[in-house]
Amino acid sequence: MKYFVLGSSYVVRLDAGEKIIETLRALCERDAIGSGFFDGLGAVNEAELGHFDPATGDYSWTKLSGPYEIVSLCGNITAVDGKPFIHAHAALGDKTFTVRGGHLREAVVSVTCEVTLTRFRDDIGRKKDGATGLFLLDLKPDEG
Amino acid sequence: MKYFVLGSSYVVRLDAGEKIIETLRALCERDAIGSGFFDGLGAVNEAELGHFDPATGDYSWTKLSGPYEIVSLCGNITAVDGKPFIHAHAALGDKTFTVRGGHLREAVVSVTCEVTLTRFRDDIGRKKDGATGLFLLDLKPDEG
Amino acid sequence: MKYFVLGSSYVVRLDAGEKIIETLRALCERDAIGSGFFDGLGAVNEAELGHFDPATGDYSWTKLSGPYEIVSLCGNITAVDGKPFIHAHAALGDKTFTVRGGHLREAVVSVTCEVTLTRFRDDIGRKKDGATGLFLLDLKPDEG
Repeated sequence: MKYFVLGSSYVVRLDAGEKIIETLRALCERDAIGSGFFDGLGAVNEAELGHFDPATGDYSWTKLSGPYEIVSLCGNITAVDGKPFIHAHAALGDKTFTVRGGHLREAVVSVTCEVTLTRFRDDIGRKKDGATGLFLLDLKPDEG
Repeated sequence: MKYFVLGSSYVVRLDAGEKIIETLRALCERDAIGSGFFDGLGAVNEAELGHFDPATGDYSWTKLSGPYEIVSLCGNITAVDGKPFIHAHAALGDKTFTVRGGHLREAVVSVTCEVTLTRFRDDIGRKKDGATGLFLLDLKPDEG
Repeated sequence: MKYFVLGSSYVVRLDAGEKIIETLRALCERDAIGSGFFDGLGAVNEAELGHFDPATGDYSWTKLSGPYEIVSLCGNITAVDGKPFIHAHAALGDKTFTVRGGHLREAVVSVTCEVTLTRFRDDIGRKKDGATGLFLLDLKPDEG
C-alpha cells in the first residue's frame, strides 16, 4: 500500500495480495483517522460479501473467487473503542459483466485498488443497537 | 434521522421505517441546502426503481420488496422552484447477492442507512428540457 | 457539456450524444486538472465495459447498446505524459433493472449525465507496471 495526502484527502494504492478492509483499517489507525468516507475502484480475486436479514438478525455470507472488477466500493470510517471501524459495501463484476454486491467483509486485491479517502476533523463513534445487535452511528439527537 | 455536521459535510443516519429521498429532502429544506452531492450505504426493505426510455420519453418503474443491501447510493441536490430536489440512483443487492439498479424514486430503510452529504456554497437549479420533459441541470453556457 | 465550478469541485452536465470519458478528459485538459476523483449518474445508450483477467494480462470487452441507467459511475483523474488520464468503473442498469458493470472504456450519453468532480491541488502520475502492463498510480514510498 502506498498513499498520497492532499489536505484532508488520501489517494491510496493497494497492491496485489493486500486485503482492502484490513489495509484501510491499518492506515486509519496509523494516521488516527476517526471518521471519514471513501470510494474506490480496481480489481480483486477473493471477496466475502454479506447480506443482512432483519427477520433473523443475522448476516448470510458468500465467498467469491476469481477475477472481479470492483464496479463500486463505498464506505465510511468511524471509531469504535478507540479503533478505526471500516464499513464498506461493494459491487463486483465478473467476466460476463454480471454484478454481485452487498456488505463487504473483506477482499483481496488482484491487480490494483485505488481508493480516495476523505477524513473528517472530528471522530464519529458507533454504538450497539439493542434491536438489531448492529453497531449504528452514534449521533446524538442534539447534533441533528 | 440524526446527523452530524463537519464543515460543509453532513454524516446522516436514517433509521428503520424512514424514507431516504423524503428524509434527505427534508434535511436539505431545513438547512437550506441548494446544491450538493451524497453517497450512501445501508439496507432497505422497500424500494422503487425507475428506468428511463428515451424512445418513449417515459420511466418504467418496479417496486422491490424484501431485505436489500444498498450496494451503492449516489445522488445530487439542486434547487427547483426554491425547493430542494434530490436526484439519486441506487444499486440494491438481495440475499443471493444479485444486484438490481436504476433511478431511485424512494426507498424505506430496514435497519440503517448512512449517508455522507457535501453541500456546495451556491445553489444550482434545474430547468425543464423541451426534448425529454426531464428537469436537467440549469448550467449557463458561460459557466462552462 | 456545461459545468459550474465551486471551489475545487465541478458540477458537470453532459448532454445527449456526448462521450463521457472523452468529454471529461477534454475538461481536465482545458482546466489543467492533473488529479482528482468523480462520481456520476445519468443515462447512456452505448457503452463499452472491460474486465481484466490477471491470468492472461488482457482485458475482455463488451459493447452494450440500448437505454441504460448509470447506476454508478466512479473514477479518478491522473496525469500521464502531461495529459489527463481518466480511470472509471460503472454499473449500468437495463429496463429489467439488471445491472452489468466493469471498467468503463467509453459511453455515450442518451439523455443526461451529471458528474461531480473534485480536483486536487497536486498532480498524481501513473507508471507502467512491469508485471501487468497496466498503468498503476505512481506514488512514491516516502509519500506513504
